[in-house]
Amino acid sequence: MNSYSSKLLEDAVNEFAKLPGIGRKSALRLALHLLKQQTDDVEQFGKSIIKMRNEMKQCAVCHNISDVDTCEICANPKRDRSIVCVVEDIRDVMAIENTSQFVGLYHVLGGIISPMEGIGPDDLQIGSLVSRVQSGEIKEVIMALSTTIEGDTTNFYIFKRLKDTNIKITTIARGISIGDELEYADEITLGRSILNRTPYHSGL
Amino acid sequence: MNSYSSKLLEDAVNEFAKLPGIGRKSALRLALHLLKQQTDDVEQFGKSIIKMRNEMKQCAVCHNISDVDTCEICANPKRDRSIVCVVEDIRDVMAIENTSQFVGLYHVLGGIISPMEGIGPDDLQIGSLVSRVQSGEIKEVIMALSTTIEGDTTNFYIFKRLKDTNIKITTIARGISIGDELEYADEITLGRSILNRTPYHSGL
Repeated sequence: MNSYSSKLLEDAVNEFAKLPGIGRKSALRLALHLLKQQTDDVEQFGKSIIKMRNEMKQCAVCHNISDVDTCEICANPKRDRSIVCVVEDIRDVMAIENTSQFVGLYHVLGGIISPMEGIGPDDLQIGSLVSRVQSGEIKEVIMALSTTIEGDTTNFYIFKRLKDTNIKITTIARGISIGDELEYADEITLGRSILNRTPYHSGL
Repeated sequence: MNSYSSKLLEDAVNEFAKLPGIGRKSALRLALHLLKQQTDDVEQFGKSIIKMRNEMKQCAVCHNISDVDTCEICANPKRDRSIVCVVEDIRDVMAIENTSQFVGLYHVLGGIISPMEGIGPDDLQIGSLVSRVQSGEIKEVIMALSTTIEGDTTNFYIFKRLKDTNIKITTIARGISIGDELEYADEITLGRSILNRTPYHSGL
């Protein structure tokens, strides 16, 4: 795959191939697909990407991706401002919002501490979380990060920064997924689900 | 995956999700990846796509994708103008060029006859192939289409259109791939490879 008959095509393929999870063969397939589309449609595609990158903002409160200065969730007077759920990025906000089980606000870190990738605490929205907590309105912070070494490190770091503020710090429950069979669960999850057992109530 | 906090993000995700093989989750991942890139890089990506679509040409001779009116291959005086290899699209040209075994010219049909997808002979560059052959310079046409029902149909249609011209019409050899074990080959390929056996010569 090295002799493109067109520099224009080669440039577009190179750009597609920079995207994560897209190799050169897929990139060529995508570029050839676009060549078969209407000029207007391709123009709309290209412009929507550029527009998104240029005009995208972060919510000034929770740092979630937003088109306005304060995002819909933070601006909603019906949300409980005393509970803040700390997540890694917008995908986690969307996943939790889809459950309709959380009425508080969020705090989007924009990543997790990862020495391997050169991401330290200062690269994340941790200082602004501490400021939000110190401002006094927040009573509980729910940590909802991945259960990886990086997630645990980030949890621990934030816990240390917040522990003098005397607010309640919780983490989302870890356990056996609903519908999963016990014999296929990993031991750490199963062990933790026994330690953190909850009072029985029918209906769940 | 329905509540985007940003219309700009949602638009970009929708555009990515129109691409073949990219679902909504992958589209979101790609859009968020672009958000983390430099503004200039994203602008270059978007513009390269639009530029490719707007400025791309087809070679006037072989209809391959090209930046100029006559592609490099057709313009190359060292290529054998008496042999033309008929292929479906530019990927086949690239694959054959990579073998360095073919010194003739190409004819890119731009697809194959597919009633299921509403692609008939008139949607393809078949008329221009007939004209090229009738112009007299061509002595042999090599059919190099996929061995599918659509490919066979297209082969047969082109054969019928060309048979009165008295040029030689061949197809690329079908047989067991080099390195493949016989026991794993499908019966049709194996059967055909016996029928179309070639004289033994060492070194292959």
